[in-house]
Amino acid sequence: MAHASLVEVLKGKFSVGSEVVVKGWVRTRRDSKAGISFIALHDGSCFDTLQAVVPNNLDNYENEVLKLTTGCSVAITGEVVESPAKGQDFELNATAVEVMGWVEDPDTYPMAAKRHTIEYLREHAHLRPRTNVMGAVTRVRSCLSQAIHRFFHEQGYNWIATPIITASDCEGAGEMFRVSTLDMENLPRTDKGTVDYDKDFFGKEAFLTVSGQLNAETYACAMSKVYTFGPTFRAENSNTSRHLAEFWMVEPEVAFADLDDAAKLAEDMLKYVFKAVLAERADDLAFFDQRISKGTIERLQKLADADFVQIDYTDAIEILEKCGKKFEYPVSWGIDMSSEHERYLAEEHFDAPVIVKNYPKDIKAFYMRLNDDGKTVAAMDVLAPGIGEIIGGAQREERLDVLDARIAEMEDQDPADYSWYRDLRRYGTVPHAGFGLGFERLVAYVTGMGNVRDVIAFPRSPRNAEY
Amino acid sequence: MAHASLVEVLKGKFSVGSEVVVKGWVRTRRDSKAGISFIALHDGSCFDTLQAVVPNNLDNYENEVLKLTTGCSVAITGEVVESPAKGQDFELNATAVEVMGWVEDPDTYPMAAKRHTIEYLREHAHLRPRTNVMGAVTRVRSCLSQAIHRFFHEQGYNWIATPIITASDCEGAGEMFRVSTLDMENLPRTDKGTVDYDKDFFGKEAFLTVSGQLNAETYACAMSKVYTFGPTFRAENSNTSRHLAEFWMVEPEVAFADLDDAAKLAEDMLKYVFKAVLAERADDLAFFDQRISKGTIERLQKLADADFVQIDYTDAIEILEKCGKKFEYPVSWGIDMSSEHERYLAEEHFDAPVIVKNYPKDIKAFYMRLNDDGKTVAAMDVLAPGIGEIIGGAQREERLDVLDARIAEMEDQDPADYSWYRDLRRYGTVPHAGFGLGFERLVAYVTGMGNVRDVIAFPRSPRNAEY
Repeated sequence: MAHASLVEVLKGKFSVGSEVVVKGWVRTRRDSKAGISFIALHDGSCFDTLQAVVPNNLDNYENEVLKLTTGCSVAITGEVVESPAKGQDFELNATAVEVMGWVEDPDTYPMAAKRHTIEYLREHAHLRPRTNVMGAVTRVRSCLSQAIHRFFHEQGYNWIATPIITASDCEGAGEMFRVSTLDMENLPRTDKGTVDYDKDFFGKEAFLTVSGQLNAETYACAMSKVYTFGPTFRAENSNTSRHLAEFWMVEPEVAFADLDDAAKLAEDMLKYVFKAVLAERADDLAFFDQRISKGTIERLQKLADADFVQIDYTDAIEILEKCGKKFEYPVSWGIDMSSEHERYLAEEHFDAPVIVKNYPKDIKAFYMRLNDDGKTVAAMDVLAPGIGEIIGGAQREERLDVLDARIAEMEDQDPADYSWYRDLRRYGTVPHAGFGLGFERLVAYVTGMGNVRDVIAFPRSPRNAEY
Repeated sequence: MAHASLVEVLKGKFSVGSEVVVKGWVRTRRDSKAGISFIALHDGSCFDTLQAVVPNNLDNYENEVLKLTTGCSVAITGEVVESPAKGQDFELNATAVEVMGWVEDPDTYPMAAKRHTIEYLREHAHLRPRTNVMGAVTRVRSCLSQAIHRFFHEQGYNWIATPIITASDCEGAGEMFRVSTLDMENLPRTDKGTVDYDKDFFGKEAFLTVSGQLNAETYACAMSKVYTFGPTFRAENSNTSRHLAEFWMVEPEVAFADLDDAAKLAEDMLKYVFKAVLAERADDLAFFDQRISKGTIERLQKLADADFVQIDYTDAIEILEKCGKKFEYPVSWGIDMSSEHERYLAEEHFDAPVIVKNYPKDIKAFYMRLNDDGKTVAAMDVLAPGIGEIIGGAQREERLDVLDARIAEMEDQDPADYSWYRDLRRYGTVPHAGFGLGFERLVAYVTGMGNVRDVIAFPRSPRNAEY
């Protein structure tokens, strides 16, 4: 008999009367006085458990079924029947229960069927996917990643693997992780007594990437439409709900595109993935809506249908200055907006996603295209109600002379390090633009989970790289 | 007027007589004596170039069009017409040519339209996607990655991001890259004088992952069907055509599955992606077939239709011993087969993909399930004609006592390091299995490219982490 996943049984893939075998883990067992046990089984294929009704005439009823506890793994054979219970269409009349794995000492099982704090779950990252909440996060996260790949594929983009390890020093190595194979207890030294990186694996200093953008640009300037979706790293000592030392980033890069094209692409992509998760993961979203963050579904639906507001940074600053609200950080032209400012714009003033464009050049990266006013660059941030900045992007500087002037303005940077990046402007340069989406921030936003550490399987942060 | 991609024009999306604007890079320019120029344009959207016929009555014909060289970027407006030329259905009668970017000194342009060696292209990794061959590799690679995601998604798998940085020492750190933020010139020391990793970012030694498998197992033992698709690392000092220091790996992990299930999954997945690339990238495959590796298409078609042979390691050894062929490395039960043995089986003996199963336990990892004979484990390798091993997998040891005995047999391993891995066997253990596919080997195999360094954008190898 074929092994059926729970979602197949619950969605009615098997007609009433069919015999199936399901396999999964016991979430709860309840025994009636009439000598029947009800087992709620989960296998990860959907949010809901399947109820198996186990009669007491099974050979192993007394010895095994009555000893089943949360977390035990079982294979249950039975007949699919219509369920008299509310909230489920089908259940299983069990004809055999095979125990595959017991739980060693149920009293100390870390994932026992009771309420655990989210911090406790984080400390048991290898077992937390067995819980309702982390199962739902896992399915939603996977759904979002699939939707992102599908969106770009349908639009003719090529997925590019930009390098994880890089000896390129293009954005400054201040907050990067070093990658090395040198013997730390016996570091090789140069004649001058400094560490001899020529002896290291790559023959020079190497680090983990902070962004694939500059590399993606080289491919956009050949393939026209590309995107990356891979891990990036920050060695920042920040213990916040929005930061991870290791996180996944989506970075499309488009040739023959300007800032408005990038803004439209960001809006189209977000709406596409919101619609996908609403259509495909209604079960998990209902849970998040009820138990994690009220209004989650309505919020996503609203964003999927909304027209994103577009506004210039200069106008946004004026709104903030005139709004009469007392901010912790004062507002004036030239500031790097803080979260309170961004959220005021998206949540209170516009009550809609907002794309802020054309930021002061002094607070943005050297590669962003200088506007004709000479003081702003063609940068954008997408601000979403409830989270603030979720996407940052820009049109890139495609004019060699302007780019060189920007590089020269930076401290501690050797223009020679940028030779390959400059080549894109020396040989058939084209206007191009792109953006970066922090994938964990998207998942946190969609699920309403308050901390990015709870939307990635094994979060990495200061003093935490277990598993 | 909307910007049309070349593939749209070439595939007939625009009816004859439509006016479109196309944007891309000049591959070649040819001038006729009649005062007409022919520009072959590429934009990465497909293998073929689009021919634009440029009349000499354009204002900038003399001053600009006649100066266009390979690599220049242009926007060409024109009318779609049927092409009289062979090999293309449509071309463009240009009414305007706007030059966006010149090539600085065409004589020294590194990607000039002539034959370059593959090694030369590798040294110009930022410009090589502009060539026919690397454009084709990029599209095929992206097609394969999309097909892999689609295959697993359609089958109900959840994509998991297993960690890149890990302090877990489960497989021995011999060939791993260290990740650190310690000041190398002033390493902190413990009282004993050794490096004080408590001061490092993660509070202990941390490395780049060599496999997400053990982490994926934790999710399979909750979600049933999961897969990873992410970068993995080897700090091996090997300069071969099959090794990269940084490469992408696909690792499905399935609960309630045994070795035969894993073998079937591997066969189903490979056939699915071969069919996808045959259907979606016929243009690029035709190029590989003609110019890189004769017979590429026939080989892929044959694999997509073939029944994979399954054979026990013990029987495979017997075939090799009796075949009468002289091998460089002698054959006897217990050896780790070398490439010559694997290729003999797949290419000469069976002339089909071969899945070898049940290897001697002493040459396989501790986590592979011990067979009843006590001397083999439920491991498998998938061998493909023309490349040898392309997938390695196993049923995992789900019995705690057997696993513990295997861990105890290993040298230099502290069972305490495996506590979270052992938990999966203490709490509701289930049979489970999975495999790993080296993605670059798959791309190299499909394209016929001889070296994995030419199927990833920016290859990393000893002394090479540029860009």
